[in-house]
Amino acid sequence: MNKLVSSLKEALALAGLRDGMTVSFHHHLRNGDHVINMAVAAMQELGVHDITLSASSLFQVHTPILSAFDDETITGVESDYVGGDVGRAISEGRLKKKAVFRSHGHRPADIESGKMHIDIAVIAAPSSDAAGNCTGKYGESACGSLGYAMPDARCADRVIVVTDNLVAYPLCDFSIPETQVDYVVTVDSIGDPAGIVSSTTRITRDPVGLKIADYAAQSILHSGLLKDGFSFQTGAGGASLAAAMYLKDIMLRQNIHGSFCMGGITGYLVDMLEAGCFEELMDVQCFDLKAVESIRTNPRHKEVSASHYAAPGKRGCIADHLDAVILGATEVDLDFNVNVHTNSQGVIMGGSGGHSDVAAGAKLAIIVAPLIRARLPLIVDRAGTISTPGKTIDLVVTQYGLAVNPASPRGAELRERLKEARLPVTSLEALKKKAEDLSGVPASVKRGERVVADVLYRDGTLLDQIYSIC
Amino acid sequence: MNKLVSSLKEALALAGLRDGMTVSFHHHLRNGDHVINMAVAAMQELGVHDITLSASSLFQVHTPILSAFDDETITGVESDYVGGDVGRAISEGRLKKKAVFRSHGHRPADIESGKMHIDIAVIAAPSSDAAGNCTGKYGESACGSLGYAMPDARCADRVIVVTDNLVAYPLCDFSIPETQVDYVVTVDSIGDPAGIVSSTTRITRDPVGLKIADYAAQSILHSGLLKDGFSFQTGAGGASLAAAMYLKDIMLRQNIHGSFCMGGITGYLVDMLEAGCFEELMDVQCFDLKAVESIRTNPRHKEVSASHYAAPGKRGCIADHLDAVILGATEVDLDFNVNVHTNSQGVIMGGSGGHSDVAAGAKLAIIVAPLIRARLPLIVDRAGTISTPGKTIDLVVTQYGLAVNPASPRGAELRERLKEARLPVTSLEALKKKAEDLSGVPASVKRGERVVADVLYRDGTLLDQIYSIC
Repeated sequence: MNKLVSSLKEALALAGLRDGMTVSFHHHLRNGDHVINMAVAAMQELGVHDITLSASSLFQVHTPILSAFDDETITGVESDYVGGDVGRAISEGRLKKKAVFRSHGHRPADIESGKMHIDIAVIAAPSSDAAGNCTGKYGESACGSLGYAMPDARCADRVIVVTDNLVAYPLCDFSIPETQVDYVVTVDSIGDPAGIVSSTTRITRDPVGLKIADYAAQSILHSGLLKDGFSFQTGAGGASLAAAMYLKDIMLRQNIHGSFCMGGITGYLVDMLEAGCFEELMDVQCFDLKAVESIRTNPRHKEVSASHYAAPGKRGCIADHLDAVILGATEVDLDFNVNVHTNSQGVIMGGSGGHSDVAAGAKLAIIVAPLIRARLPLIVDRAGTISTPGKTIDLVVTQYGLAVNPASPRGAELRERLKEARLPVTSLEALKKKAEDLSGVPASVKRGERVVADVLYRDGTLLDQIYSIC
Repeated sequence: MNKLVSSLKEALALAGLRDGMTVSFHHHLRNGDHVINMAVAAMQELGVHDITLSASSLFQVHTPILSAFDDETITGVESDYVGGDVGRAISEGRLKKKAVFRSHGHRPADIESGKMHIDIAVIAAPSSDAAGNCTGKYGESACGSLGYAMPDARCADRVIVVTDNLVAYPLCDFSIPETQVDYVVTVDSIGDPAGIVSSTTRITRDPVGLKIADYAAQSILHSGLLKDGFSFQTGAGGASLAAAMYLKDIMLRQNIHGSFCMGGITGYLVDMLEAGCFEELMDVQCFDLKAVESIRTNPRHKEVSASHYAAPGKRGCIADHLDAVILGATEVDLDFNVNVHTNSQGVIMGGSGGHSDVAAGAKLAIIVAPLIRARLPLIVDRAGTISTPGKTIDLVVTQYGLAVNPASPRGAELRERLKEARLPVTSLEALKKKAEDLSGVPASVKRGERVVADVLYRDGTLLDQIYSIC
C-alpha cells in the first residue's frame, strides 16, 4: 500500500473528483494558506465544474480562487467566515449559487449527521508520515491544533493530506490517524508562516480599546461568575485580548483559580494557564506561535475537534460549559442582534466563526466594540445581517457605557450588579443616540435584488439572508 | 443538560435497551473488570432478553454472566477472545446462538462499516467528567489506553460511561470526548486493580522458555530486518517478553535504533523505549502499571484506537507496518495454521485477539511455544481450530529447533540466513516426530454435533467453526 501521490492534481483525480462534488478545507493556516489555492488551480486543470467549496473559513489570501468562480469550476461556497476579496466577490454576485454560512459548531454537526456530505476533504498538514498520520504541531508551517479538520477527515468519502514536512512512520503525536486518510501529497510549502500567525493577536494600545477592555473585565468580575472553576473564552481582537490581560491581573490579585479557557488560543491565554489562572486550555485553533509551542509541550493544553468545541446537540459541547465569553461585533441592533458578516455597506467581510455558538453556550456573552468606527455607529436600528441572535447576548460594552440586555435571563441581576459596582450602565438606545450625536445618522444603504448568501443558525434554521450590493 | 444517571440499570433503560439489542464492552480492565457483570445483572433486572454481548474480550472474572446465558437474557456473544468458564460454557453449548469470533482488527472494521451495529456501548472509564470526557490514564482503576473502546464509542447509537472517579469538567486529557457520550454513571468500583494488571506480564524464568526466547531473538537478529527503523510487537506471555529482553540487549549492543513498538504494551517495552531501542510506543492496551505510568507521562507513548492498530482495509493500519512480531500458540499444524482458540480437548480458552492481524501485517511473524505442554505436543496434523492461517506465519520456534514456513514469501531467504547463523533449523514434521517420541501420540478428541462458534478471519471470511464438546 502506497498513499504517496506526486501532485495534488493527481490525488484529486485518484479520489474521483467530478462535476458537482463538495470538496472541503480547514482554515488553520489562515491568511498564510497555500493549499486551497493549489487545490482550486488543480480542479481548473482537471476541467471539473460545479464544485462546492466547503471551507471552515476563507481569507484575503484566497483571492486567486475567484477565477474559478468565473469559469464555474466553483459554483458553491459553504463556509463559516469569508473575508477579503472573496467575501466582496460573493456580495457582488460573482458566485453562481447562493453561498451558505454556518457557525463553527453547526458545520461539524452537519458534516457528522450527513446533512453536509463531503466527497473529498483536503487536509493541509504541517507534518505527516507517508501513511497520513498527521498533525499541525510540528514543521515549518506549524499551526498547532487541527481541530477544524477533524470532522472533515472523519466523515469525507476520500481524504487527501497535503504536507511540506514528510516524517518517518509513524508520526506518533498525530491529530488525524492514517485510518482516515487515502492519499498523501508532498509540496514545497503549504503556507506562509507569517500569515499563519494572525496580526489580530496583538493587544490593543488604543486608549479606547483599553477602556472597553477594562469595562469588560470589570463586568466579569462583578457578574458573580468570577470564582474558582471559572471558564472563559475570548476572541483574538485587540480589545478582547486586552480584556483577558485585565482579567488575568484580577484573577491573580484575588487568587481565583479558573477551570478552562476555550477557543482560538493565543499566547495571552497561554500566559494565563502558566500563571495558574486556568487549569486547562481546550484548543480548536492556535492564533500565534506561543500557542503552537504550548499545545506541543503542555499536557494541560489539549487539541479538540470543532464538534467538541461547539457542535450543538443533545450530547453537548465545550461551548455549553462556558461561564463568560468576550466577542466582537460590526453592528449591534436595538434587539441586541449582532452582525459580524457584513460591513456598513452590506459587503461580506467575515462570518460567525464560533460567535453564535459560544454566545448561546456561555452564561455571560459580552460584546465589546467601540461605539463609533470610521464615523459609523456600532448601534443600529436593524443589523445589516443577523449573525448572532440578540436573545443570546447579555451585555454590550463600549467606551461610553454598558448596555445590559433586558431579555437576558440574568439581565436584571447583572444590571444591578454592574450598577452597584459603579460601572456606567446605560441602554442601547442611549448609546445609539450618543453615537448619532457625535457622528450623525448614517445614510441608509440600498441593497441589491439577489440573495447571495443564506446565514444558518447553529440549529440549522435560516437566521438571515445577505443580498447583493448595488 | 445533565448526563449523570444514578445507576447503570437506569442508564440502560434511558438508552432504550430492549430485546434483541447488541450491547458492547471493552476489555482494558481485563480479569479485574466489574462492569460487564454489573451491566448484565442490570439487564436481567430489566427483564430484557435476546441481547447480544459484543465484548472485545471476556475473562474468568465474567463467570457470573453465565446465569444470563441460562435465562436467555444473553443469547449471542461476539468477541475476540473468550477465556475461563465463559469459554467452556460456550463449548458446552450453554449459549443459545453460535458465538462469533473476530480479531481485534476485524471487530472495529465491522463496527465502523456498520456490519456490526452496536445499539448501546458501555465504557468502563477509570476517570470521567460529568459530560463524559473520559480516559483510562488516571484513577484508582487506571488501565492506560482505552483503544478498544474507541470504535464502540464512536459508532454506537447510545454510549454509557461508567466510572469510579468522577473529576471536574473538563477532563482535559480525554481519550473519548463528551460528544460521543449520552450518560455517565458513577459506581463504587469499576474493577479490581490487581486483576487489571495481568500476571502474564512477568518474564519467564523457566529455562525452556528462555531458550525459546533466545532463539526467537537470534532469528530476528539474523533475519535481516533488525536495523535502524525496525518495528516490533510481542505478546505478554513469558517467552515473548523474554525474547524482548534478549532483543533489547542485542539492540543496545549493536546500537540499533528502532522505530516503534505496537500492541499491548508492557513495562518491558517501556524499558526499551526509555533505553533508546525504539522511538515510539503505539498503545492499544496497557498490560501493567509501568505501561500505564508511561502512557500518562511520555509523549512518545501514544494511545491508538483498535482500528488504527489493526483494522484491515485499503487505508491500512499500524499492524501493516510491523517488521517482526512474536506470538504464542496452543497448536500449530503442519500447514503452519495456528490455534489460539481451543485447548487440546476442543474447549474454548481464548481467541485471536490481534494474533491473525499482526501475523498478516508483519514482515516476519514468529510463533514461540514449548514443543510439549502438559504432555501434549505443539505440532499437530490439523489444528483444533484455525485461528491464524499458516500462510501468514513465517517461523515456528521451539526449544528443539526452528521451522521456517516454506510457503512464506521470505521463507527461502530466512531459512538460509538462520542456517548460516547456526540456529537449529528443522521442519515442522521433524518437530512433530520429536514431540511424539518424547510423549507419545495424543489420543484424538471426539467433538460434539453442534457448531458453537464461527471464527471469522480479519477480512470477514469464515476461517473455521468450533464444535460443542462431548
